Amino acid sequence: MKQNQHPLIILAFNLLLFFMIFLVCPTYSLTIPRLSPIAEWEKTTTADDYSDVKTFYYNQTLDHFNYNPQSYQIFQQRYLINFKYWGGANSNAPIFALLGAEEPIDSSPPFIGFLTDNAASFSALILYIEHRYYGKSVPFGSREEAVKNASTIGYFNSAQALADYAQVIIHVKKTLHAKNSPVIVIGGSYGGMLATWFRLKYPHLAIGALASSAPILYFDHITPQDAYHSIVSRDFREASKTCYETIRKSWAEIKRVASQSNGLSILSQKFNTCEPLNQIDGLVYSLELMYISAAQYDRPPDYPVNVICGGIDGASSKSSDILSNIYAGVVAFTKSNDTCKVYYGPFNGSETSEGWRWQTCSEMVIPISIGNNSLLEPSPFNYESFARDCKEKFGVAPRPHWVTTYYGGHDIKLVLKKFGSNIIFSNGLRDPYSSGGVLNNISDSLIAVHTVNGSHCLDMLGAKKTDPNWLVEQRKTEIKIMKGWITQYYADLK
Amino acid sequence: MKQNQHPLIILAFNLLLFFMIFLVCPTYSLTIPRLSPIAEWEKTTTADDYSDVKTFYYNQTLDHFNYNPQSYQIFQQRYLINFKYWGGANSNAPIFALLGAEEPIDSSPPFIGFLTDNAASFSALILYIEHRYYGKSVPFGSREEAVKNASTIGYFNSAQALADYAQVIIHVKKTLHAKNSPVIVIGGSYGGMLATWFRLKYPHLAIGALASSAPILYFDHITPQDAYHSIVSRDFREASKTCYETIRKSWAEIKRVASQSNGLSILSQKFNTCEPLNQIDGLVYSLELMYISAAQYDRPPDYPVNVICGGIDGASSKSSDILSNIYAGVVAFTKSNDTCKVYYGPFNGSETSEGWRWQTCSEMVIPISIGNNSLLEPSPFNYESFARDCKEKFGVAPRPHWVTTYYGGHDIKLVLKKFGSNIIFSNGLRDPYSSGGVLNNISDSLIAVHTVNGSHCLDMLGAKKTDPNWLVEQRKTEIKIMKGWITQYYADLK
Repeated sequence: MKQNQHPLIILAFNLLLFFMIFLVCPTYSLTIPRLSPIAEWEKTTTADDYSDVKTFYYNQTLDHFNYNPQSYQIFQQRYLINFKYWGGANSNAPIFALLGAEEPIDSSPPFIGFLTDNAASFSALILYIEHRYYGKSVPFGSREEAVKNASTIGYFNSAQALADYAQVIIHVKKTLHAKNSPVIVIGGSYGGMLATWFRLKYPHLAIGALASSAPILYFDHITPQDAYHSIVSRDFREASKTCYETIRKSWAEIKRVASQSNGLSILSQKFNTCEPLNQIDGLVYSLELMYISAAQYDRPPDYPVNVICGGIDGASSKSSDILSNIYAGVVAFTKSNDTCKVYYGPFNGSETSEGWRWQTCSEMVIPISIGNNSLLEPSPFNYESFARDCKEKFGVAPRPHWVTTYYGGHDIKLVLKKFGSNIIFSNGLRDPYSSGGVLNNISDSLIAVHTVNGSHCLDMLGAKKTDPNWLVEQRKTEIKIMKGWITQYYADLK
Repeated sequence: MKQNQHPLIILAFNLLLFFMIFLVCPTYSLTIPRLSPIAEWEKTTTADDYSDVKTFYYNQTLDHFNYNPQSYQIFQQRYLINFKYWGGANSNAPIFALLGAEEPIDSSPPFIGFLTDNAASFSALILYIEHRYYGKSVPFGSREEAVKNASTIGYFNSAQALADYAQVIIHVKKTLHAKNSPVIVIGGSYGGMLATWFRLKYPHLAIGALASSAPILYFDHITPQDAYHSIVSRDFREASKTCYETIRKSWAEIKRVASQSNGLSILSQKFNTCEPLNQIDGLVYSLELMYISAAQYDRPPDYPVNVICGGIDGASSKSSDILSNIYAGVVAFTKSNDTCKVYYGPFNGSETSEGWRWQTCSEMVIPISIGNNSLLEPSPFNYESFARDCKEKFGVAPRPHWVTTYYGGHDIKLVLKKFGSNIIFSNGLRDPYSSGGVLNNISDSLIAVHTVNGSHCLDMLGAKKTDPNWLVEQRKTEIKIMKGWITQYYADLK
């Protein structure tokens, strides 16, 4: 049974999938964990009681920006509330609103440990709001109908999602008679972009935003297209120069072996694939996927980049066979006793990968290329072919400049230096997406909090005993800033 | 020929029309001037050469917030540019962007004299952008098609209009290679709301906004519903207590006379109507319309409220016949030698009145009532019947809370005190709409500039030799603040 093999490395068919998959903050949240190679290596230590989390539904408007009859259609939007720590409306106790991203919202309470760890010290309510078209918040009666064609999926975009969040926040505050409870919106990765944009577009509904690993500048040529892979490369180079060079050499070696008459058979054997390879693309992609995800989620205590390089360098000291040494990296990374390591099977898109594919094909056009002198082989971002593929798949073309038109991004310091307030942009510099994040303070209340050794959304996870001091300090800094917002708000309220 | 009579007072059929019509800034801009009773009494003194104004069209996207195939439809959006005063892209000379409101844009250059009067001292380009569904900026090929039903008219709303402006501003700056030219958005009345909201939603595209007479707080119970008519009443009471009382008594007197057997005939004669009255509603509405517009546009040098009260009080000193005295007010107001003063004819909706009717029936729900002890007879704002009428006319219901959901408004000082910058809220306190305006500074860069004796959008008109000192000073203050923004921008740019 293939499904029972829990293979840890999957041969993806499309490089794009990397960027669809990886803009996810807590890696646990994917419903098909095999899409997320790091799902197995970290376990939450949060011991919270999730019976405190109640599920609700809001009658959400299909289209906030149109008044044609169809736009008035209603769908059920799911949101969750954890009342356990809340000080109540009478004391104007705050509300943490986690803005859901490209996944079902019920995966958030256990894994966004930052909220449950800290809600008590704020006496905060925790509100988790699901993003439209994910989980149970799907219009048109069923997911199948909702994503059937461009006419039904067209309502699936960030501006509509932010308006949904606005409506839900207003509704919840009204229902709880909590008019003066300050709301802080929080999100990671795409959710962090949403949190940033929500604070900028709806300052009347949120006094501040914590945006973790939000690459809001990875649009429209603001960030160099090869920036993501520059960091992947740097992560490996800094972990081990020899490991880095071994990986770089491996691509040509794979091709060389594959070009032999029995090459694919040799590769299948060397990489212990679950089924014989019939081309090398799947193998190459699966290795790329491993390196990229190791870099993006290069987390303590193990640091998967170190783990892979430990495997590769350890083997390299004994053998000069590049591919065997690479395979040693795979074994080290997967920590698995499974017989086969590389599973080349059919790709069943999860709602996350399918949904994010649509989002990147419509408005969230994040142009990522692989430059020369990278860990992986060079690969330009060809917008024309990207747009053609999107058009072919969904029937409509991307709008690659819309994000910067609606949300801005160009000259962000010049623009926001004297506009806006109360946003924390947190990043870990080992995260390749940090290249598209805000890494310097914009003003005294638009604050960048980054850690040199941090990774994607690391601060959002629950605290662990093994957390290094810099991570503890990062979270403390964020909490201190957020408490400052609330103190100021209460003072202004008087 | 009725069309040649240029009757100055029109019997409107619906009190709503007052509020549809009057949210127009320069009264000259209406294509059917008879809808605007004050069109005849003021003439522009601007001597600008409008051959400098060139007309352009932009291929605008039908729906910015949806990705269904229809949303990709393109329509031609008109914009005008006056290059005469511009210092050019090389010197990063600024751009004044007038955000069109509920009227064709070509009426703006001659009548928004504030821009042409001051562009030279800024070396500014003047860009006038037409609002979708007005003038020549109409989707679906023709106005008839565009407003045919809720499916086509549904795209007609402020959020879409702001996104249009964003696209046009980006396009114009790109075309002129004027990347670093700062843009200041400007608008009056509804256009002033758009300017405010544009600065708040698109700070990356406009460094500041001048919002003249923008009642951004006249939504959703923020402003008392009777505030508008409290000011109408105050304007008349302050002009003349006896005049005010005469008008108040006149409503019962009209009813008393009308209830007589030949009452309508007497009234037709007393008010010199162009055709015999067959009911009193038209007469009552036309008088209300006169008082309201006199209050809203109570401008120097003549001050129409004084003119009307001069007529009424002058006659009252000689006669105790209330209706004759009221008629003397009508004669004074109209300054007309036409035989007939009150024309009860069929109402041909202009694109402005029709368009604004839609806008107020969908999102711009401005709840205006007439309280007790007002100049006019009390009239509550009944949302249910309002919504029912809208639903009946357009097939869809209003969304009365959307403006405050998307743009805010509640607790504006608390919200914006530490968020946002560079908006001038200008108002004249004789303008009944000033009751829904921002009349106090929110922060040191969200500034309220009001004049006690000013009226609706008065500062936007061209300077006249007869302008009182307080008006000259108001405009000077606005210019000084705007120059400060630009100086700061250039300093930040370095």
